Amino acid sequence: MNALSLIQGTSGQIERELHSIFDAKIARPSAHGADLRFLWEATASRAVGGKLLRPRLFLSTVAALRAPSAGGAPETVERPEFSPSELRVAASLELLHFGFLLHDDVIDDDLSRRGRPNLIALLAATRSTEPARDEESGSRARRLHWAQSCAMLMGSLLIAEVHQIFAAVDADARSDALALLDHAISESVAGELMDVGLSDGMLGADLPTIIRMSEYKTATYSFGLPLQTAAVLAGAPAELGPSLGRAGRHLGLAFQLQDDLLSMFGDPARHGKDAFSDLREGKETALIAYARTTTTWRHIEPWFGVGDLRAADARTASTLLEACGARTFVEGLIAEQLTALDELTARHDAAFPVPLVRVLDGLRDELVGRAA
Amino acid sequence: MNALSLIQGTSGQIERELHSIFDAKIARPSAHGADLRFLWEATASRAVGGKLLRPRLFLSTVAALRAPSAGGAPETVERPEFSPSELRVAASLELLHFGFLLHDDVIDDDLSRRGRPNLIALLAATRSTEPARDEESGSRARRLHWAQSCAMLMGSLLIAEVHQIFAAVDADARSDALALLDHAISESVAGELMDVGLSDGMLGADLPTIIRMSEYKTATYSFGLPLQTAAVLAGAPAELGPSLGRAGRHLGLAFQLQDDLLSMFGDPARHGKDAFSDLREGKETALIAYARTTTTWRHIEPWFGVGDLRAADARTASTLLEACGARTFVEGLIAEQLTALDELTARHDAAFPVPLVRVLDGLRDELVGRAA
Repeated sequence: MNALSLIQGTSGQIERELHSIFDAKIARPSAHGADLRFLWEATASRAVGGKLLRPRLFLSTVAALRAPSAGGAPETVERPEFSPSELRVAASLELLHFGFLLHDDVIDDDLSRRGRPNLIALLAATRSTEPARDEESGSRARRLHWAQSCAMLMGSLLIAEVHQIFAAVDADARSDALALLDHAISESVAGELMDVGLSDGMLGADLPTIIRMSEYKTATYSFGLPLQTAAVLAGAPAELGPSLGRAGRHLGLAFQLQDDLLSMFGDPARHGKDAFSDLREGKETALIAYARTTTTWRHIEPWFGVGDLRAADARTASTLLEACGARTFVEGLIAEQLTALDELTARHDAAFPVPLVRVLDGLRDELVGRAA
Repeated sequence: MNALSLIQGTSGQIERELHSIFDAKIARPSAHGADLRFLWEATASRAVGGKLLRPRLFLSTVAALRAPSAGGAPETVERPEFSPSELRVAASLELLHFGFLLHDDVIDDDLSRRGRPNLIALLAATRSTEPARDEESGSRARRLHWAQSCAMLMGSLLIAEVHQIFAAVDADARSDALALLDHAISESVAGELMDVGLSDGMLGADLPTIIRMSEYKTATYSFGLPLQTAAVLAGAPAELGPSLGRAGRHLGLAFQLQDDLLSMFGDPARHGKDAFSDLREGKETALIAYARTTTTWRHIEPWFGVGDLRAADARTASTLLEACGARTFVEGLIAEQLTALDELTARHDAAFPVPLVRVLDGLRDELVGRAA
């Protein structure tokens, strides 16, 4: 089993754990359980089915760090066994991700995710328990308000559950794991606020701001947190922590920049988002920040942030973004991050054990090759 | 020192602890700290200054349960000393309350709280870092969107912080305390969703539904959680837990019903909310549920949920609510809850120690006598 298949081979276990967490909520015997049941069921139907990138990265890092010694034989990480606590922490990383996505969808007024109606759209289609009231004028707007409120509160409940799971890990790892979670959540909120500030015109959309926003909003919780929590739970030397944090930032930035490219130049049938949604939403990405510095921008700007932009016009804008050099520029940024990652893992003093380097290489290959 | 002054006498310590928690966030040395600083400062300015009901109830219960034995002399609870961990848990109950208020304000589109602009209104008045952009049309709506997004995310950060504080209590109390927190948050969300469902017309506004909503949304986290967490931290016998839960429900319902009366018949200069805000928002309360069953309702209904209702019309509606018997009915419900509380604390098998009964009596007197 190579590193790539190791990273990919744990999905079944993670999905079973996610189902077991949701099933416990759905079957909750308390009085209020019945009132929340439909909401947990709806949330489970949307939360399961993702690529499980964060839990897979966490579990494969745990397995890699358990391999005996830095030069440990790679075969020792084949078919690893994970403890119930490790599987729960893995699943919790997906709950955290989904909780953030829910808040994101509320903030952005989005109704689709992963190529299908998101939780908000699903709930907004729910009929009232009072059929007569459903016919009132304005009831559609009220259902949407109700659905968005549900998504906001469910996002908070998911983040609460992640804390419960982290608070239940072994005593020798608990306080370090909780500190990592605290840092990651705080930084993600800082990033989300920068993102909102950029789209609401409260912040200037220059490249350094956008890079910092991506690092805060995505890299830390998606890469740094799984890597560093795995190290804490596997009892790895403390000095590995900061190096893993740096590796997470490089991977996270490469991932986010790749995501921006996919939204503009990828195949929507494969990446599952609305085609050109970033362009229609007027999302300030590294692509746009670069394009703004070119003379081509005045031809792109009329299409930027136009909610009902036609597909043909979106394709024109996309062609112009390529022509002005923005695509090449962002591809260069991705290559820089991956080179920095390679240099980091090759450094003797960074103390990356070989099995862990293989996991990072596998993840890097998965990210670069992805179409979704 | 009597029970009432005990309950009231801990405010200074709680406020100091709250400031110390916020100061640590504001002075956070991490890179993202600077990006969140203004938001933590703004949040602290709104979160401190409440009546601290929940932390005071928690601390006075801890002190009462520490008094030696059930018949312990009341003077032993004078000037109690609290451990740093107890003070942090006390403060965290205010953070939880404020986090819920933020989510509530986002859901209800509210801009004032405690008689002054709330966090959303404060942030919406913040100038952009890009002065030129501030003049754009639509910038006011975008600032409001940004401010509401900030409030939603800050609410989640506060709830996350509560978990961090609960996860750090002594090992012998930790898992019980975390389970109480989990239950309280889940039930509060169930109650909040019923509240939104009532105002968005997804649920029928009958009295049992409204009573259950109040119990879920307010009673559990505001009364049951402080009481039961205090018992766990003070090492009280486990069989006291369910009795405290019941006491919390009675107190919580009395408190919420009293709140409904204040909004309709109280002095806005003293209770600090917008006069008749419940009436203008069309809030489904026990008062309204009763009035709906009377023939007077057809005269009240035209004023119900009218956002720009004039004060004179609001006073007419209020007079009609009194005339139809709704006020007397709700006063009766409050008396029922307080009688049930008295019966519970007097029961031999409920095992309430005398100092704790004095605390509950003191709280009951504070609630009944309040004008705000």
